[in-house]
Amino acid sequence: MVDYSPALMTDMYEYTMLDACLRDGTADRKCVFEVFTRHLPAGRRYGVVAGTGRILDALEHFHLDDEDLKFLAERKVVSPDTIKWLENFHFSGSIKGYREGEMFFPNSPILQIEGTFGECTLLETLVLSILNYDSAVASAASRMVSAAKNRPCMDMGGRRTNEWSAVAAARAAVVGGFQGTANLLAAQLYGLKAIGTAAHCFTLVHDDERSAFESQIAALGKNTTLLVDTYNIEEAVKTAVEVAGPELGGVRIDSGDLASLAQRVRNQLDALGATNTRITVTNDLDEYALAALQTAPVDSYGVGTMLVTGSGAPTCAMVYKLTEREGADGVMAPVMKKSKDKATTPGRKLAYRSYEYNLAEAEHVISGSEDKLAGYTPDEGWKDLLVDYVDHGQIDSSWQGHDAIMRAHDYRAAALNELPITAQSLMKGDPVIPTEITVL
Amino acid sequence: MVDYSPALMTDMYEYTMLDACLRDGTADRKCVFEVFTRHLPAGRRYGVVAGTGRILDALEHFHLDDEDLKFLAERKVVSPDTIKWLENFHFSGSIKGYREGEMFFPNSPILQIEGTFGECTLLETLVLSILNYDSAVASAASRMVSAAKNRPCMDMGGRRTNEWSAVAAARAAVVGGFQGTANLLAAQLYGLKAIGTAAHCFTLVHDDERSAFESQIAALGKNTTLLVDTYNIEEAVKTAVEVAGPELGGVRIDSGDLASLAQRVRNQLDALGATNTRITVTNDLDEYALAALQTAPVDSYGVGTMLVTGSGAPTCAMVYKLTEREGADGVMAPVMKKSKDKATTPGRKLAYRSYEYNLAEAEHVISGSEDKLAGYTPDEGWKDLLVDYVDHGQIDSSWQGHDAIMRAHDYRAAALNELPITAQSLMKGDPVIPTEITVL
Repeated sequence: MVDYSPALMTDMYEYTMLDACLRDGTADRKCVFEVFTRHLPAGRRYGVVAGTGRILDALEHFHLDDEDLKFLAERKVVSPDTIKWLENFHFSGSIKGYREGEMFFPNSPILQIEGTFGECTLLETLVLSILNYDSAVASAASRMVSAAKNRPCMDMGGRRTNEWSAVAAARAAVVGGFQGTANLLAAQLYGLKAIGTAAHCFTLVHDDERSAFESQIAALGKNTTLLVDTYNIEEAVKTAVEVAGPELGGVRIDSGDLASLAQRVRNQLDALGATNTRITVTNDLDEYALAALQTAPVDSYGVGTMLVTGSGAPTCAMVYKLTEREGADGVMAPVMKKSKDKATTPGRKLAYRSYEYNLAEAEHVISGSEDKLAGYTPDEGWKDLLVDYVDHGQIDSSWQGHDAIMRAHDYRAAALNELPITAQSLMKGDPVIPTEITVL
Repeated sequence: MVDYSPALMTDMYEYTMLDACLRDGTADRKCVFEVFTRHLPAGRRYGVVAGTGRILDALEHFHLDDEDLKFLAERKVVSPDTIKWLENFHFSGSIKGYREGEMFFPNSPILQIEGTFGECTLLETLVLSILNYDSAVASAASRMVSAAKNRPCMDMGGRRTNEWSAVAAARAAVVGGFQGTANLLAAQLYGLKAIGTAAHCFTLVHDDERSAFESQIAALGKNTTLLVDTYNIEEAVKTAVEVAGPELGGVRIDSGDLASLAQRVRNQLDALGATNTRITVTNDLDEYALAALQTAPVDSYGVGTMLVTGSGAPTCAMVYKLTEREGADGVMAPVMKKSKDKATTPGRKLAYRSYEYNLAEAEHVISGSEDKLAGYTPDEGWKDLLVDYVDHGQIDSSWQGHDAIMRAHDYRAAALNELPITAQSLMKGDPVIPTEITVL
């Protein structure tokens, strides 16, 4: 059972700002906030959006119970009037943004949240936490899947990141192109394919390797995958085929020089008649290691540490900025901060991708007042990148759950194929298409 | 309200191994598993253990409810007999290991779990997830705290990592020497000091900076910290002191060249008579940036991204390995895998730290059978590094909760002071003391 509210998964200043704004009346001002990143991780050509469905899940449970309210009151985080306001809090604004599985670039308006200042402010930390981590994992996953060509990649990274990150990472990995995960809670919550058979300790707890293999076959059948590198790989492969016969499902190698070992094991399996026995390799793989294994006779990959840590970029540096708000005069006005190196583009945004010969050539971000944007007509063939997630507090549930994840999985593959092929290069470089900002 | 069981925060193979071992009887074999890392992140001189108290918290809730059991049955992860075995699962083994806040090095036996194979196996993924992430954050925090000298460091990183990682990171940061966190759930769950006042959107939602400052002072008092870099810092500081008077608590700078800006703002504040107004800086700080700010007139630091991502090392590469187990003959025997580059040291372990002139000179890991270890006498002055966390299923609750975290906070400072000063160098280098392994 998983039951919790994410309402306190929040930086304290969201609540202190709410408190001050409720006192002075600005908490009710209509606002537009935007999530974007100023830059991709160094050398990356594109990013992959993930986590939006989880934001919707969290929104459904975003309420404060008595214990939470008591905590805020006792710590004097907010005043008694604000406690009252929070008692029946639910988000009544609107959210639109990029699909999960969509490519993003610097200044892509990945999510836009519209509502009162009070309600939008409370979501900032949670929205950023989810998008920053999930998109980091999906972006890394996408590079790995490209490098693995058509071979399936499986998430085995749960043990190398926070126990809840592990669940989010499994989901984001599938959005990013992975086929399944070792993580059972992710499989349960999101209906993902779960994989895994045995670790070295399984072989070690038995009196010898043969009895371990016999036990595993008895429990999981001949189609299971036997781990063959606990002692001596050649002996293990011989024993494995003796025990399971040539119909053995697979073997896993988790150490050593994977390319040459895979070749030796393939030859040995073939010589033993186990020509359909698959080879899975696992051992600190990243996209570069996967690219190097393209010619090795490997059937699938288990990826751990580098997946769940974003392969060198464990966060996306996405920020949540106020871009438009109602003034004292009741009129919506674009706003921007002017901080050095951290200035923002004011106003709500539209976003399109343009194509030339079926390949993306630019991301177009159009900024302006609601009126001006309503009268804007994009060029022919530009793809509208924004979808509606929440309409005045009503969540569109078609973006949540297993089916949405699998659609995002397919969407990513299609969207990546529409980018110039350079996107799939592992060489460091600039974003593969430019982001062009137009202020109406 | 936070209510969940971590029992499925687990790789599937833990359950499939359990299933096979219950069938063949090896699930009841007594085992010793060990958590250690083969190496520190490149160039790091030491690591800081964190997360053990969270493992104990998780252990208290590690049970499978009907929904979980149904999931395992429907997915055919395990057999009906195993479902029965899992119905009343609780860990009845023993756990000992390093304190939270303790320094660790390659091959330090950070945690040893003793029990049946079945019960120890189910804990693997969860134990590693917690220790790998929490220790990565505490290790980074410790380097930052050293670089910040006596100035307080505050965690503001929640938005740049998974929403639950944010909570764990806040706790681990305090173990690693930080003073508080922006994260409210961490403050609630662990009784940590919470900090934070306002973001740029607070200034922007108001009609001008002055009314924003007035509103914040009205809500939070003159001792609050005003954010002064939304538009023009010099003007903002002038306005801030006009609004709050010289008793203004603090100002925060979140952009630009922090050292020179801090100096200018300090001079301006002093000239305005606000000589006690504190300066906080925040903006992608890491240990190197903190070291560079040592001579700038800064009073405290808010650290985000680099803290929660382990400052370049987002995981500790800790592993969970079987080192000893009961054989068919009922006798405990050391075991080891021989995988290339991933071989393990067999047998249960003792661990000590030796000193010369009050400075640590080596970590001593003594491996052997229970009998041999019982007869082992360490040299005079060696510190015993192992404490008991769980005794035959009974959790020692003194290692859980707020007080344990604050003891770990103090322990880290003392333990770091006992290492050679090189430990606090930010130059890349080897572990500051060697780990000497003795097999009895």
